[in-house]
Amino acid sequence: MAVYTTVTADLLDRFLADYDAGAPISFKGIAEGVENSNYLLETTKGRYILTLYEKRVNADNLPYFLALMEHVAAAGVPAARPIANISGDQLTTLAGRPAALIEFLPGLSVTDITTDHAQRAGAALAQFHRATASFTQRRANDLSLNGWQALAAKCADGAESVEAGLGKMISDELAFLATAWPKDLPTGTCHTDLFPDNILFAPDGTPGLIDFYFAADDFYAFDLGVMVNAWCYRSGSFDHALSTALVAGYQSVRPLNDAEKAAFTTLCRGSALRFLLTRLYDWINPVEGAQVTPHDPLIFARILEDQRLKAGFEAYITS
Amino acid sequence: MAVYTTVTADLLDRFLADYDAGAPISFKGIAEGVENSNYLLETTKGRYILTLYEKRVNADNLPYFLALMEHVAAAGVPAARPIANISGDQLTTLAGRPAALIEFLPGLSVTDITTDHAQRAGAALAQFHRATASFTQRRANDLSLNGWQALAAKCADGAESVEAGLGKMISDELAFLATAWPKDLPTGTCHTDLFPDNILFAPDGTPGLIDFYFAADDFYAFDLGVMVNAWCYRSGSFDHALSTALVAGYQSVRPLNDAEKAAFTTLCRGSALRFLLTRLYDWINPVEGAQVTPHDPLIFARILEDQRLKAGFEAYITS
Repeated sequence: MAVYTTVTADLLDRFLADYDAGAPISFKGIAEGVENSNYLLETTKGRYILTLYEKRVNADNLPYFLALMEHVAAAGVPAARPIANISGDQLTTLAGRPAALIEFLPGLSVTDITTDHAQRAGAALAQFHRATASFTQRRANDLSLNGWQALAAKCADGAESVEAGLGKMISDELAFLATAWPKDLPTGTCHTDLFPDNILFAPDGTPGLIDFYFAADDFYAFDLGVMVNAWCYRSGSFDHALSTALVAGYQSVRPLNDAEKAAFTTLCRGSALRFLLTRLYDWINPVEGAQVTPHDPLIFARILEDQRLKAGFEAYITS
Repeated sequence: MAVYTTVTADLLDRFLADYDAGAPISFKGIAEGVENSNYLLETTKGRYILTLYEKRVNADNLPYFLALMEHVAAAGVPAARPIANISGDQLTTLAGRPAALIEFLPGLSVTDITTDHAQRAGAALAQFHRATASFTQRRANDLSLNGWQALAAKCADGAESVEAGLGKMISDELAFLATAWPKDLPTGTCHTDLFPDNILFAPDGTPGLIDFYFAADDFYAFDLGVMVNAWCYRSGSFDHALSTALVAGYQSVRPLNDAEKAAFTTLCRGSALRFLLTRLYDWINPVEGAQVTPHDPLIFARILEDQRLKAGFEAYITS
């Protein structure tokens, strides 16, 4: 939640000279983005987010993310759309960083989530999956099972210091997932990080999607499992009404098949472990100067414990 | 440069229920303000800055600052204007903090300062002084000579650790100012902190003033001295052309009298010492969790050394 790289008015003028995006009227660094610097830019032509990708970001992946954003926006999904410069490039350079100018998406993220929000958010994910079916670029999810095993190995020493028993919980779960993880579910481009702060609800309730920087190929139903964990645990408790609305919203656009339903608890457990592990890693290895407080990993330890108790797909859709 | 207090969409809705300011369309925490949290809010009625005053701010002074902002905006000075709620209050409460909704002022602050910027900025200060002549609320400047003496006493031990000889430079300067400081120059409400980042230039070049939270009664010419130090030293060197333009801009609206001109170097020295001392204090006593990097105090030690060499008012107006 910070601006790491300062862009002066002069630098901005030189940057905008390569775009057909008007002259600047206002320009504010915004407190969003953990690994990016973001500015809200208003020009005589419109409003934009100017993003500078900081050094922790692998620049090789940026063309994929920007192409994906372009693809889903063009398919009619309300999503932040990158703007090309006069040479046709979406990815350029500013202040020594890879940079992109992105259409401003209005709306507010919600914290007091209603079933209406959950229903719309679930439908938005399914619309995203529909739109990405025709997206041809591929990117393996490095935060799937193999990635979790690698992360767990790096966190093994630190886990016990965060909470007694946490290391064993993680290794037990990895052992379970290694055998239980499904192999042939419907697969395609997933957002993989559609937390409430990555959906902006417009005043008419339309959910707009942002922050595609973890997008990758994975099981569609895994992406929904990420949302169940991110949207349906309120103050630590599973909210059946929210989960029912979220899954119903998703299925109103893309019904899950029987194999996806049968694997759903396993997918939710995998998603809980994924965020437990990445948060644990960031907790144990805080980034100097990151200007962000690491998220508490134990929230996802509790979610994982709860998911282990779920008795099949019905547990998510019966409020 | 941070958002210290998180305002959720739900909290924002409840806050706006007391205003006739429309429904929220977008809401972004912005990376401005050292002792405030600031959000850029767009509603169906307009754009605003929502400011929450954090705990280091003395809330007793807030009605004065807001009344001043209202006064100068009403007098036609381009300046951020506070919005009253439906009960007529400009200062309210949000998330347990004093809060104000302030009209959004477009424009960009400049870093590559031209003589045109300097001329307009100087004229804007004089317009501000003209407008405040009819402002009836009084506030003594606690960062004038008495305040500097108190600050210097608190920094005495730390100064030498920052730079050898710095403690003696400060005590020598205070001794000089104690005898040389003028007593009866034209006085009124001053901004006292009109650095380049506190002026936003609109696309047509109109300078808008922001950040009135150091405003207080002082010599008008002292306020101009603050600007000379803040605007006319570029990469450590005094820029005669900028100074000439700044002072000419000021005098195009409010000519300085002979006493102000005679005292001008002393006022500039006092201003240099003021920022040297406050920065030194913040450097020695960093605020935990402030999420800001303290400014380098030594920049103002070098400015003070340069100001000591100035041979009268002509030194500022001959490019």
